[in-house]
Amino acid sequence: MDRLLVGLTFACSLLALIFAFVTARRVVSFPEGNDLMKKISSSIRRGAGAYLKRQYKIVSVFFGVMFVILEIMALLGYLTPYVPFAFITGGFFSALSGFVGMKIATLSNARTANACQEGLNRGLRVAFSSGSVMGFTVVGLGLLDISVWLLLLKFVFNLSNEAITSAMLTFGMGASSMALFARVGGGIFTKAADVGADLVGKVEAGIPEDDPRNPAVIADNVGDNVGDVAGMGADLYESYVGSIISASALGVAAFHSLEAMALPMLLAAVGVICSILGTFFVRTTEGASQKQLLSALSRGTNFSAIVIAIVAFPIVYYILGKDNWTVYFAILAGLISGVLIGQATEYFTSDSYKPTKKLAETSETGTATIIISGISVGMLSTLIPIVIVAVCVLVAYFVSGGAQSASMGLYGVALAAVGMLATLGITLATDAYGPVADNAGGIAQMAGLDEKVRERTDALDSLGNTTAATGKGFAIGSAALTALALMASYIDKIKTIDGGAEKISNLNITNPTVLVGLFIGACLPFVFAALTMNSVGRAAQSVVKEVRRQFKEIKGLMEGEADADYESCIDLCTKASLGEMVLPTIVAVIVPVIVGIVLGCTGVVGMLAGATASGFLMAVFMSNSGGAWDNAKKYIEGGAYGGKGSENHKAAVVGDTVGDPFKDTAGPSINILIKLLSMVSIVFAAIVVHFSIL
Amino acid sequence: MDRLLVGLTFACSLLALIFAFVTARRVVSFPEGNDLMKKISSSIRRGAGAYLKRQYKIVSVFFGVMFVILEIMALLGYLTPYVPFAFITGGFFSALSGFVGMKIATLSNARTANACQEGLNRGLRVAFSSGSVMGFTVVGLGLLDISVWLLLLKFVFNLSNEAITSAMLTFGMGASSMALFARVGGGIFTKAADVGADLVGKVEAGIPEDDPRNPAVIADNVGDNVGDVAGMGADLYESYVGSIISASALGVAAFHSLEAMALPMLLAAVGVICSILGTFFVRTTEGASQKQLLSALSRGTNFSAIVIAIVAFPIVYYILGKDNWTVYFAILAGLISGVLIGQATEYFTSDSYKPTKKLAETSETGTATIIISGISVGMLSTLIPIVIVAVCVLVAYFVSGGAQSASMGLYGVALAAVGMLATLGITLATDAYGPVADNAGGIAQMAGLDEKVRERTDALDSLGNTTAATGKGFAIGSAALTALALMASYIDKIKTIDGGAEKISNLNITNPTVLVGLFIGACLPFVFAALTMNSVGRAAQSVVKEVRRQFKEIKGLMEGEADADYESCIDLCTKASLGEMVLPTIVAVIVPVIVGIVLGCTGVVGMLAGATASGFLMAVFMSNSGGAWDNAKKYIEGGAYGGKGSENHKAAVVGDTVGDPFKDTAGPSINILIKLLSMVSIVFAAIVVHFSIL
Repeated sequence: MDRLLVGLTFACSLLALIFAFVTARRVVSFPEGNDLMKKISSSIRRGAGAYLKRQYKIVSVFFGVMFVILEIMALLGYLTPYVPFAFITGGFFSALSGFVGMKIATLSNARTANACQEGLNRGLRVAFSSGSVMGFTVVGLGLLDISVWLLLLKFVFNLSNEAITSAMLTFGMGASSMALFARVGGGIFTKAADVGADLVGKVEAGIPEDDPRNPAVIADNVGDNVGDVAGMGADLYESYVGSIISASALGVAAFHSLEAMALPMLLAAVGVICSILGTFFVRTTEGASQKQLLSALSRGTNFSAIVIAIVAFPIVYYILGKDNWTVYFAILAGLISGVLIGQATEYFTSDSYKPTKKLAETSETGTATIIISGISVGMLSTLIPIVIVAVCVLVAYFVSGGAQSASMGLYGVALAAVGMLATLGITLATDAYGPVADNAGGIAQMAGLDEKVRERTDALDSLGNTTAATGKGFAIGSAALTALALMASYIDKIKTIDGGAEKISNLNITNPTVLVGLFIGACLPFVFAALTMNSVGRAAQSVVKEVRRQFKEIKGLMEGEADADYESCIDLCTKASLGEMVLPTIVAVIVPVIVGIVLGCTGVVGMLAGATASGFLMAVFMSNSGGAWDNAKKYIEGGAYGGKGSENHKAAVVGDTVGDPFKDTAGPSINILIKLLSMVSIVFAAIVVHFSIL
Repeated sequence: MDRLLVGLTFACSLLALIFAFVTARRVVSFPEGNDLMKKISSSIRRGAGAYLKRQYKIVSVFFGVMFVILEIMALLGYLTPYVPFAFITGGFFSALSGFVGMKIATLSNARTANACQEGLNRGLRVAFSSGSVMGFTVVGLGLLDISVWLLLLKFVFNLSNEAITSAMLTFGMGASSMALFARVGGGIFTKAADVGADLVGKVEAGIPEDDPRNPAVIADNVGDNVGDVAGMGADLYESYVGSIISASALGVAAFHSLEAMALPMLLAAVGVICSILGTFFVRTTEGASQKQLLSALSRGTNFSAIVIAIVAFPIVYYILGKDNWTVYFAILAGLISGVLIGQATEYFTSDSYKPTKKLAETSETGTATIIISGISVGMLSTLIPIVIVAVCVLVAYFVSGGAQSASMGLYGVALAAVGMLATLGITLATDAYGPVADNAGGIAQMAGLDEKVRERTDALDSLGNTTAATGKGFAIGSAALTALALMASYIDKIKTIDGGAEKISNLNITNPTVLVGLFIGACLPFVFAALTMNSVGRAAQSVVKEVRRQFKEIKGLMEGEADADYESCIDLCTKASLGEMVLPTIVAVIVPVIVGIVLGCTGVVGMLAGATASGFLMAVFMSNSGGAWDNAKKYIEGGAYGGKGSENHKAAVVGDTVGDPFKDTAGPSINILIKLLSMVSIVFAAIVVHFSIL
């Protein structure tokens, strides 16, 4: 039966990868359009490829150094010998997820634009298929990594369940580190190019978005692929794997059984099947309205969510037995919370609702008021998600028997996160097709296609914004729950170390080391957001100067008689973002060790709690402020408050520009940060127990 | 000996009040200048007075309702009968502190402008004397309230020490509620007027600041008095009293002695004497440079700080004896931390240092980049203060015997806050003279005085910004320490209630109610900041529309041939701010009760910890972002990056405008919020123990 469980996970991982491969072949079979489109798409692909290559080079130095450190720790007996290798595979698969996503996205952008010449539905099919490739690659690789390691450690090396989950948490650390590099680096690239292009092109020169005269326009499109696609791929690989392995680890702590350990994997595996089935519902008749398209997408994700909600019940009952079947409600709570957070996100950021409409209205009184109000909207929008997470935690904890055993309660919390992410295959597909549509719009514009094409890609793009809200809900919600689960895993881990139990005995919140740890942990998301936004600011400034230089020095550029030097902008963004991405990641890896050495294990727990709480808030705040500004601008562009080119529009563009690093660099990076902090803490736990000062 | 201790506190409170009175008489003896100046000053005074009168009317309804609620609780046996009255006196004295500050400030503004006609030093003397009146009124009234209640409860009603401190914490709640109303209401008023005046006057119409043609100009000056003066007065009364009574309460819990309870009061009383002595050092020769003036101010505050640092030692040794004299180092740690946080604040917000200079440079690439960078500066600036507070908490805890008894350690933390605020008399004086100088500048401009006068008031104002940084350091640092002390008091309080000890036994940070409380508490400062900033935004929008209307409809206004309708702007700000101030305060009072009822006492403790951590971070972030934008703008106005009127300057003005509600409304209100939450929790503790669900 053990082998059956693991084998099923393995089989589903292959199923996901095969589905991704077949879908990719179908995408590539679509025509790419005329020569100009091919040329533009290939420039974007080349730029993105070159960026990722250089990124992986830098990241591999980090991984090399960490490998040596972990290897030394393993030799000294602080870690099992598998840990350094697990760390590497986590990073490798996370990077691969991003790479595959980027590859398929850059192969689909021109194809989507071309398909949009025929109709909206056809465009949706290409773009959504591209998203599916990424979605199923992420889940396929995630389950592959998990099941292969489990097979090896359990059936080849015959490790205990505790040792297995401990090693597996390390590949979580590898995945999180890689994800942070990808999110931060890609996020800086994309926003530097975007901000640079917008500020000089739209605001100063007054030329439209994606105008080929703008030297930063290709860099902007490359950025969508390396940030919003490759970054997101690595990020969600990390979320997916992190939620599963943290739940597995807590399952072992609570039940000491392989079954409890395998349950999260099995849920994820079944989620793959539900997601694949769901994709078949995403189709609509030709000539469908935008509303019909949206409902087609929702039908897919809703179908998958409902099926997993139903199927989870017999699975939980079968695995945990009649004494513990109520754990099922934890999974259900997670699923529902994810949906609700997504809806709250949509309410605060979509221009169909009051907050964003009101925000657009504040542009009437100028730039300052739209900035103030946008920040307020984001801060206010933290309330509902935090209440949802709070209720979810309480429900998951108590239905899983938390009143009797804290371990069981925390296992429930971790399973809620798994529930949220079980159908990641399809939710990610609906999320990841957005940047493809965005790119398609850029290509349509640059290739001078019919206005109608651009309108259709814009429709797809705005559709993507709505579905992305749900995706964000799942990502942020699961990050908070997973971080809490990892905090519990850390405590379990400390207890297994000689002398550890005593060191972690006083976790009372009034213990000054816990409190001080809490303060420092709560500070980290602020510092981290500052570092990444500063990086965007610096990188954007260099792009602004370069674009201004080209406008001034290249004669005939504005008249369309000379070509802009796109390469120099791409190169600038690449260099700037790669230079800037290292510090934040190193901070995230070093701080938990320093806090541990100075404040001891109790301080680390305080730090993790503080970072999770403030990180969740900052992530929601920054994502939602950014989203609201973005859509307020689009709302004005749709004709409200003076429309395009008005003073109000200019104010809204500034808002959107401020929001860019909020929502696409700092916000999503914080989600990764809070998990990476715990994983680093777990890996270095033995060091902290032995060498801590307080 | 008991009576001697209390008597000494009482005597020092009278000393402070007499000193304030004498200083006030000296201020009033200065001439007010020509008729136009008198007229302007009297308009400002009238506007401020009318605002406060209406504010107090609304606030008294709140106090009336709360009094009835507390009285019912007292009748039902959940509170001692003194509590409702203590609540009222706290509110009354807090309001009185703000009122006296406003009165003297509005009496000094024209006098300062007039004195500046003679010289910088003379201007400084008037303005600083006005600040001193406010500083010593605040500490005098604070000590008066404390000592009179102590005399009554101890020697007339013969209550136990525990019952005394419990009742005294209630007047802290009264003071905090009033302070929150004053800060929020005044903060909305002043920033709505300021933002409104700047956006239309400076940015749109291109007329200078404080130009009499701007209809919002008087409202702006009124705002300085009701927000930066009356709000600050009420706020610091609350901080001062809060730190002393929370330390007293913990002293009783740790030592069960009147001596330990009296120590904080005694330190504050001696601090009054040190502060008065310090004021005599604030003088310089005529014709002194700005640097010499600054060193004159610093000499005063440094002298007071050093004397209290020395004198505290024998006091502690005498009161706590040779077994516990190391508590002295907690006080010292508090003092040093306050100074260091002030220096960190100055580093991040003064244009003498890199961060603000760099921020000014980002105006080169437009509004969006200066906004992004300003937010980054603020977020990054949280790191150093949080480390300082962390070290201070650990030192204060462990030198006070926290390793043996948590109560003693927490008493040390509370005393650190008292140490920070012991010389509030003089630090507040250096803080409170800034708005007076600001107003004087406005009057000089409006009355058409010589350019030199405006230069001098500007010099005073910018001097005030530097000294205010130190003041802010003390205010923010003491707020965090006091909030922690109050959290400990809450736990002590619950333990004294029947059945409470059991309900609060599991304060483990992994207890889900604690964790969920932590999440919700951490969210409160975000929601609170959003509410207050939204209020500013809404109020500012109405001012903007009114100013635009007047520019359009009043013929000859721009040519200086017709007068603006100042009254309508004042009226608009008054109505808007009073309408907006109620909701945030009610949220702060109701949330702790709801959290308590739903999550129980452990949830409340989690909430308090979360609110303190995230509140401290948000307060530092918002204050420093705002300060940095303000000074970056001034730096550009000083001639850098194109100077006044350049595109860079326009970008910096937007930054400053965004920063206004950050630093003068949301930021300081959060400091009060985190303490009010604990005090409300303490007052409603019995209700929560009896009726909580979880």
